[in-house]
Amino acid sequence: MSKVFVDVGLSLDGYLAGPNRGPRNPLGDGGTTIHAWLFKTATFLELLGLSGGEASPDDQVVKAIMGRAGAYVMGRRMFDEGEVGWPEVPPFRAPVFVATHSAREPWRRKGGTMFHFVTDGIVSALEKAKAAAGGKDVRVSGGADTIQQFLRAGLIDDITLHISPVLLGDGLRLFDTLRPSDVKLEQQGVSASALVTHIDYRVVR
Amino acid sequence: MSKVFVDVGLSLDGYLAGPNRGPRNPLGDGGTTIHAWLFKTATFLELLGLSGGEASPDDQVVKAIMGRAGAYVMGRRMFDEGEVGWPEVPPFRAPVFVATHSAREPWRRKGGTMFHFVTDGIVSALEKAKAAAGGKDVRVSGGADTIQQFLRAGLIDDITLHISPVLLGDGLRLFDTLRPSDVKLEQQGVSASALVTHIDYRVVR
Repeated sequence: MSKVFVDVGLSLDGYLAGPNRGPRNPLGDGGTTIHAWLFKTATFLELLGLSGGEASPDDQVVKAIMGRAGAYVMGRRMFDEGEVGWPEVPPFRAPVFVATHSAREPWRRKGGTMFHFVTDGIVSALEKAKAAAGGKDVRVSGGADTIQQFLRAGLIDDITLHISPVLLGDGLRLFDTLRPSDVKLEQQGVSASALVTHIDYRVVR
Repeated sequence: MSKVFVDVGLSLDGYLAGPNRGPRNPLGDGGTTIHAWLFKTATFLELLGLSGGEASPDDQVVKAIMGRAGAYVMGRRMFDEGEVGWPEVPPFRAPVFVATHSAREPWRRKGGTMFHFVTDGIVSALEKAKAAAGGKDVRVSGGADTIQQFLRAGLIDDITLHISPVLLGDGLRLFDTLRPSDVKLEQQGVSASALVTHIDYRVVR
């Protein structure tokens, strides 16, 4: 049975992205500092079509995340920002289901990524992703409001956070709008490198 | 040379305390859930004059924190809340310097805690605490606004956070009002139990 997971990097003050986000600044001011650890890993650089990077313990973390997802779900705004920002070979290499209000034909990209546009809600997008995941798990990629909708609907099984030692001071918070009764968590594994702390949580139903 | 440190428990959404705080509810609604791990440790229960608790790895963390501080600094509001809430033997067992606008004679409590009231600012309170710490470190206890003042003034060397897998949704955030330029951090050690993740940071000057 496919699990549904969220996996995001956060600043220490809880931001997914900094202020002044936009198509040309998708992570907002200072937002790339959240992912400094990620940009040093061989697996992530390879996904972007770049060479170099380290085969570090952080790289093993990235490899496990990428290997886990058989399909993705994301919100329309994340797609819109990514459409102009992702490389010609987007870093998914799997079916991606975009929850949106605007119907559109599927969009095939190089490297195995195929975007499908789902107009009848997040539950439908998730069902289609599960059916397409080939027995692997489904990752709800973002943005924050999409993740919050999935959490409030009780549709997420696992959350992995990568907490970096940076403050952004303003921007988009992962947990904004969520109440204590929306999400009960159990902490699972914790690991760390010099640049980041990785924490796995299980959502308690 | 005494180091100056902050050591606080946080909810996963970044709160030190929940909403609706007051003298009878110093941690706010849900705030005690942040410290569920702490209330299971033998060292903390003993500090409150209670028996029981576990000699777990979390307990070793508490023991190290308590052993490190030779004196404390806190803000007036934290003192006011504690004055009605702390047990007859307060959990400091050391000199505590309260930064306040109201002069008051020192207040001696059982078990080695002595409150001193400092009316000429946080730097003066810190200098007095360093002089009284007997070569040990000084802990800036809180509240959030006092910690933020110390961080902005560049007076903190180390921060330890204990991040619990709970959401509070509202309340008092540790890092509110701080800008990225106020604090640069390097991540040091990370450890965890089933209930909490402990992360040590060094403030980079």
